[in-house]
Amino acid sequence: MLNQPNLAVNQAGHLTIGGVDAVALAEEYGTPLYVLDEDMVRGQMALYREEMKKSLPSGSRPYFASKAMSCKEMYRIAKEEGIGADTVSMGEIYTALSAGFSTEDVCFHGCAKPWAEIEYAVKAGAGLFGVDSLEELARIDRCAGENGVCQRVLLRVTPGIDPHTFSAVDTGQVDCKFGEAIQTGQAMEMVRRALGYTAGILDLGGGLGVPYTAEEPTVDYAAVIRSVGEHLACRCQALDYPPPAIFMEPGRSIVAAAGVTLYTVQDVKSIPDCRDYVLVDGGMTDNPRYALYQARYTALIANRAGEPADCSVTLAGRCCESGDLIGENMLM
Amino acid sequence: MLNQPNLAVNQAGHLTIGGVDAVALAEEYGTPLYVLDEDMVRGQMALYREEMKKSLPSGSRPYFASKAMSCKEMYRIAKEEGIGADTVSMGEIYTALSAGFSTEDVCFHGCAKPWAEIEYAVKAGAGLFGVDSLEELARIDRCAGENGVCQRVLLRVTPGIDPHTFSAVDTGQVDCKFGEAIQTGQAMEMVRRALGYTAGILDLGGGLGVPYTAEEPTVDYAAVIRSVGEHLACRCQALDYPPPAIFMEPGRSIVAAAGVTLYTVQDVKSIPDCRDYVLVDGGMTDNPRYALYQARYTALIANRAGEPADCSVTLAGRCCESGDLIGENMLM
Repeated sequence: MLNQPNLAVNQAGHLTIGGVDAVALAEEYGTPLYVLDEDMVRGQMALYREEMKKSLPSGSRPYFASKAMSCKEMYRIAKEEGIGADTVSMGEIYTALSAGFSTEDVCFHGCAKPWAEIEYAVKAGAGLFGVDSLEELARIDRCAGENGVCQRVLLRVTPGIDPHTFSAVDTGQVDCKFGEAIQTGQAMEMVRRALGYTAGILDLGGGLGVPYTAEEPTVDYAAVIRSVGEHLACRCQALDYPPPAIFMEPGRSIVAAAGVTLYTVQDVKSIPDCRDYVLVDGGMTDNPRYALYQARYTALIANRAGEPADCSVTLAGRCCESGDLIGENMLM
Repeated sequence: MLNQPNLAVNQAGHLTIGGVDAVALAEEYGTPLYVLDEDMVRGQMALYREEMKKSLPSGSRPYFASKAMSCKEMYRIAKEEGIGADTVSMGEIYTALSAGFSTEDVCFHGCAKPWAEIEYAVKAGAGLFGVDSLEELARIDRCAGENGVCQRVLLRVTPGIDPHTFSAVDTGQVDCKFGEAIQTGQAMEMVRRALGYTAGILDLGGGLGVPYTAEEPTVDYAAVIRSVGEHLACRCQALDYPPPAIFMEPGRSIVAAAGVTLYTVQDVKSIPDCRDYVLVDGGMTDNPRYALYQARYTALIANRAGEPADCSVTLAGRCCESGDLIGENMLM
């Protein structure tokens, strides 16, 4: 965990996040507490913004996948950093707008959009819709027509690629509730119905990934963006196709490394010949990812952060469910 | 699904729940919508109350495990039906009290209780604490002493029994974040520290189970309660021990069969040579049980409830995660 440049240990032996004492934060605000390092968030947003401007065709830009952290302050920061907002519900659009976002910088993505939310977004003037299916395309077209709007849209297609992650968060394979598949011809049918012109935008979606533990490799985001630019230029030249602007929707790679959750230990249970449970005042209610797909995290004792981690424990939450764990075999 | 006595189909071909048209409910209140049949809830509460009075020692009573459905109206019904409230957080205690519950009818259960919540419950006069560990026993004792209260407690022990359910909801095995284990001697240590007298209450906890689909066997709750009474009388006589009052904490067996969730279909995706997705306006946000442990449910089309179910589909929610499913291979 201390591999990250913004984390350190102070003279009291306490973890510091961006120079701020984590124990003092827990005392002032209570726990469980999400702590986000604003400088890191801004740094990642700026990295995407600048690198995409430099390495990709004109008009290319990142949209913050706000499902990764949807609150007014995050939208305010995204707006200040000059990146767009990728939203997936009326509530997220409303929050973005109430934080001062311009409607044209908002993209409304997601599957199964209810009619009332489509109407809300069309009327609010959302800059772009991510169209998830043929049926939805017809619905958005009808809504835009009824409201006298010519709605700009992106068409979501599934390329049939296995991203080798938790199956619960795979979104590119043919067997997927999102988008229309290229392999089945359904994506082309959607394109035919929507387009009479050359596509000017290619939205690559999110998913550049983040390392969760010290053993996982770090990602060189700038290098990935440059590589996208090179491949794009090469393929467009080969196909004699005008290079589209590239959109990306980074979410976790903006906030994950910047975030730390602070808990207070409430109980420790050493069960002989079995294992040691450390019980904290949070759990699957603030972080369901271990309960859902055993996502791995690193933990440390914030008020003894300078001491070696020599004890392997099961970190458990306080929900009335044995599956409410934050991690197993965690060195602390 | 229509096996339940309170579900039927009316002349319009619509599902009715306790005689009320489900389509009309969806139109009036919007979806996703939890619908609970109050008569069934009251019936189950009365069944536990009456059967426990009849078949178990004096003082025996059910406590509604309110984590199964925690809202003011449910506490109001539980109070009217004369059963106790099993709570696991300050928020649940607060909600129970604000619905008119008497503090002496509230039991504060759960692991990893924070000091602030222990203090809140002690000061509010919670009738009983379910003590989860040796450490917690000391903490509750200190808090009660500081507030001049002699706090009644139950001691939670794990009997080392495998209940053959989803491992995420197992709570009786030795390797468990809840309670202290009998097999390791830790439970006896807790009893030694807490008791100088004969235990007057045996709280059996919850978990009498419910069938989720038509194929699963129904439970004869009255027969289970009678059988508990018979075993208890027999064992107490053999051990020459005064029969304790029995507490039970039914939750799902009060509300599950009484509850139906109504969704509106937003999209249908038929992926050739793959599967059919039916996308609705809810998902793991209103029901995380399929995403967590593939819990099985039955679904039907409420506005065509009279037609045969001849199509096997994947029912998916609208969250931006492929694992956001309500069920697979569901006949509709």
